Amino acid sequence: MEQNQIARRMDFIAPFYVMDLLARAKELEAEGRSIIHMEVGEPDFDTPQLIIDEAKKGLDLGFTGYTPAAGIPPLREKIRDHYRNTFDVEVKASRIMITPGSSGALQLVMGVLVNPGESVLMTDPGYPCNKHFVAAVNGVAKPLPVGPDTAYQLSAELIEKHWDDTTRAAMVATPSNPTGTLLSKQELSDIYDVVRGKGGMLIVDEIYQGLVYGRKPFSALSVTDNIIVINSFSKYFTMTGWRLGWLVAPEHYIEAIDRLAQNIFISSTASSQFAALKAFDPECIEVLEKRREEFCKRRDFLLPALSELGFKFPVVPEGAFYLYGDCSELTDDSFSFAYDLLEQEGVAITPGKDFGSNKHEHHVRFAYTTEIDMMQEAVARIRRFLGK
Amino acid sequence: MEQNQIARRMDFIAPFYVMDLLARAKELEAEGRSIIHMEVGEPDFDTPQLIIDEAKKGLDLGFTGYTPAAGIPPLREKIRDHYRNTFDVEVKASRIMITPGSSGALQLVMGVLVNPGESVLMTDPGYPCNKHFVAAVNGVAKPLPVGPDTAYQLSAELIEKHWDDTTRAAMVATPSNPTGTLLSKQELSDIYDVVRGKGGMLIVDEIYQGLVYGRKPFSALSVTDNIIVINSFSKYFTMTGWRLGWLVAPEHYIEAIDRLAQNIFISSTASSQFAALKAFDPECIEVLEKRREEFCKRRDFLLPALSELGFKFPVVPEGAFYLYGDCSELTDDSFSFAYDLLEQEGVAITPGKDFGSNKHEHHVRFAYTTEIDMMQEAVARIRRFLGK
Repeated sequence: MEQNQIARRMDFIAPFYVMDLLARAKELEAEGRSIIHMEVGEPDFDTPQLIIDEAKKGLDLGFTGYTPAAGIPPLREKIRDHYRNTFDVEVKASRIMITPGSSGALQLVMGVLVNPGESVLMTDPGYPCNKHFVAAVNGVAKPLPVGPDTAYQLSAELIEKHWDDTTRAAMVATPSNPTGTLLSKQELSDIYDVVRGKGGMLIVDEIYQGLVYGRKPFSALSVTDNIIVINSFSKYFTMTGWRLGWLVAPEHYIEAIDRLAQNIFISSTASSQFAALKAFDPECIEVLEKRREEFCKRRDFLLPALSELGFKFPVVPEGAFYLYGDCSELTDDSFSFAYDLLEQEGVAITPGKDFGSNKHEHHVRFAYTTEIDMMQEAVARIRRFLGK
Repeated sequence: MEQNQIARRMDFIAPFYVMDLLARAKELEAEGRSIIHMEVGEPDFDTPQLIIDEAKKGLDLGFTGYTPAAGIPPLREKIRDHYRNTFDVEVKASRIMITPGSSGALQLVMGVLVNPGESVLMTDPGYPCNKHFVAAVNGVAKPLPVGPDTAYQLSAELIEKHWDDTTRAAMVATPSNPTGTLLSKQELSDIYDVVRGKGGMLIVDEIYQGLVYGRKPFSALSVTDNIIVINSFSKYFTMTGWRLGWLVAPEHYIEAIDRLAQNIFISSTASSQFAALKAFDPECIEVLEKRREEFCKRRDFLLPALSELGFKFPVVPEGAFYLYGDCSELTDDSFSFAYDLLEQEGVAITPGKDFGSNKHEHHVRFAYTTEIDMMQEAVARIRRFLGK
């Protein structure tokens, strides 16, 4: 054995390329340059005061110890009520596991589902870590190139075509990162039928649930109980740094998921769990819904403005806070394009490379996690950068 | 593929047996029974007020977003200073990674070190999750039976004898859980020589660092830089539910560890990191040192009291807050013994089964995480239970 050996799985686990770009952006800022940040997948809104106050209350009450690995029962019950009240779905609290972010949920799910060598189908482009959660347990991520024809989503046909003997699961995200597109109930139902027909598991990432514009959001759990759903307090509830998410799984898997969580996490952060009890309060939801409306206004500003500059959006993104622009008429190298745009004009966006290898050189992601007046300035800078 | 299949690694990942006992203890409490808790590996002291106040300050400052995966730089620097000031060791901040508990650190280390089928040597008895962190990445945990002759620790000889072509690393803990025993500098140095001679990596768990009685604590980093050290804010700093730990690794591994952390965690809880900046303040250390003295008094009470009842402690535990008692003169079935003791006398202790398979039926663990007057009562109850 070689002393400095690094495990082979690390060959399949890429860094976030945008981190280097972010580091450069911060250097430029330190030099006094004005940088407009549209690269980060994090809401610019603070966590609602109600939630912060509750965290402080929890700390004062000494709520600082280990909790059950599955999360504190009242929070699991709040989430059950949330499914009932918001999405008209009945989900037993016992099927809901609180996790250290949706990252924790994805670790548990891959750990319990995927044997070494087994594969998981997913979209390319997609959230980069999805591949890596599979690689971490020595599974094989199979990103399938998707484009405008399927709204950048997996379809029943694609899954049917690419499923093989090694395939254990298919994973979809609605709304999706980086494309912001949605699956309809019918599409999800068709996908579910194929996956279950193959004897596999469907994993539905609903991390951006609630951040949907012009459509009524639903949960995949209204299609069937027999899937695994991943969710998060990070995006809609603007609690990124609290590291709190959840999953819903069929009863059959809960014991194993709980056992794995006990062992690899012990529990999620206690004060975050206590604070999240307030996240579903009507007063809090009112704040969050105003923010959703603001995100919608931002999309409605940014989409036509970028289209006018030559970025193409063949499918209108109806969720999350991202625009995944086809920049093929502007560059054949989106990576250099993003760096040049940062250096020359101080606008930070994410090159397609972070989301896969499917035409990544012709795509960039804009996060509309900054105010409209800043985005107006960003658009003016990009226009100048393009010489238009 | 079978629809309800659970990944094979889960066959090697056991639950915490004590969780069922804890659940039963809580049932009994709910029925009005008086239960003395000596089963849980969690300090009974609250997190120091100084740290709680700092967390609240962080929340008020809006310190609620993602942080770098490696942790906030000021905390990495505080830990560097802590090594310098407390243990007289120079460790570059760039080699220190903040993690979601030491659980997170152990995940990262096994993920970066261990290929499927490669093995890691460790003690039996030992912290049960260590085996499971290895199993989670499809490695093979090799628990080696240890006893009083090596103070329940691995020795250079044991490692030499059991190392084979599959072995990637050896793992030791000082102070150890469940036995509370320590390794000396010389022992660590001898172990290191063997492991490096074999081309492997030595992992040193210093999670209970600081909780040492009658000896001056040191860090394995004072023996060599060329190891991986795991640490935690949970035990000495009494911050269990904050989910915060750290690791120190040779420079060579940091990029890969950081890359894996970016992907599987994104970051540790922001407010916990902010709060932990106060953990090393002299005012806070003063509080923690008083608690250490209290733990020492508890050990000094409990050890002779239990010995008098027939539990044997062939090696005096000099750290952590556990006594791992040989109960072979009292029972041949420590699991039933623990349950019967709970049912009959309301004293909750952990059966040896949670720590491995090496004579587990003849051992139980007592956590002295409760006050002396409660322990006096516990001892009286155990005496009655034993009919003495």
